[in-house]
Amino acid sequence: MPKRVDHEERRQQIAEALWRIAAARGLEHASLRDVAAEAGISLGRLQHYFASKGEMLVFALDHISGLGEQRILARINTLPATPSPRTILRECLAEMLPLDAESRAANLVQIAYFVRAVHDERLRRHAKEGIPALQALFADQVRAGIERGEVAPERDPQAEATLLIALTDGLTSFALLDVYAPERALELIDHHLDALFSGNRQP
Amino acid sequence: MPKRVDHEERRQQIAEALWRIAAARGLEHASLRDVAAEAGISLGRLQHYFASKGEMLVFALDHISGLGEQRILARINTLPATPSPRTILRECLAEMLPLDAESRAANLVQIAYFVRAVHDERLRRHAKEGIPALQALFADQVRAGIERGEVAPERDPQAEATLLIALTDGLTSFALLDVYAPERALELIDHHLDALFSGNRQP
Repeated sequence: MPKRVDHEERRQQIAEALWRIAAARGLEHASLRDVAAEAGISLGRLQHYFASKGEMLVFALDHISGLGEQRILARINTLPATPSPRTILRECLAEMLPLDAESRAANLVQIAYFVRAVHDERLRRHAKEGIPALQALFADQVRAGIERGEVAPERDPQAEATLLIALTDGLTSFALLDVYAPERALELIDHHLDALFSGNRQP
Repeated sequence: MPKRVDHEERRQQIAEALWRIAAARGLEHASLRDVAAEAGISLGRLQHYFASKGEMLVFALDHISGLGEQRILARINTLPATPSPRTILRECLAEMLPLDAESRAANLVQIAYFVRAVHDERLRRHAKEGIPALQALFADQVRAGIERGEVAPERDPQAEATLLIALTDGLTSFALLDVYAPERALELIDHHLDALFSGNRQP
């Protein structure tokens, strides 16, 4: 087996140790030493793979985002042959909510990352790159909805895409705080999609 | 001057020292000792006012929320005699966005609090009490919009209120990450309110 794959696998194992800590007690107080202990390796070994906590966090976030994308694709693949734009959006947004333990852990890692990124220019650059990609995907679905006459033509696909992401992000925060159950967050997304996909009602 | 007022004033000064740290570098690494130094008092003196970081954080959050409410009321008082429901909602939501240094600091304190609350039952209870109060205020405005024929009657005031809060929360996160300017977040809220207050378009 090539050495490169082994290196990548080990980095993924470390990232997964990081998620377990994030899900159980947050990352604010988790040191590289804590993560090494959780991964069952020495601190020196961990530092061979990651020079800093910031680097480890970016890798863990990319890895968890990659798994999230795979989960979304797998979910879309179980749908009928040509899912509607609304169905695609709904499945993507549902996948972003903390509806199960895996997704809850992913969200907690993202929050830990977010809090650091607010004060760290390098981490912020990373967010700036990731969010527009998701926005473009969602804007395409809104545009397809307009073409099919399901979304009013005066809606701006870019703005609607950004609103959908922000909305899901905010609903996730409150679900993590137990303000309401994650299932209620999904109901509210359906409510928002009902209004968005209510067709061309212009007089 | 009564001793009670003096005690409260000192607690507020400490809370303000906490905000300055939150705004400058986040709270993850700020100890009670750091806050005492920023407030210009000894650690022992600070502990006379707050027994733990959690207690200090809850007080700081309440104080900052109180100031936020005062800012909203002051803003509404500058409006014409009977502002429309949409105007009231817009002013409240704009006040929640990090559009100036004070509001940015308030948002950073709220995030620091949020991250701790996810793993702390006592702090979570506090969030559970605060959010429904804001929700009720916003639901009243949506209900008034329905009565005036500005909002479609099939809209659910409670659900719309929750969506508005979640949306503003998510837009704030991305504005703090510089994904877009805070002014863009306000444009997107206007965009959402345009759709909500588009009247009764039922066929």
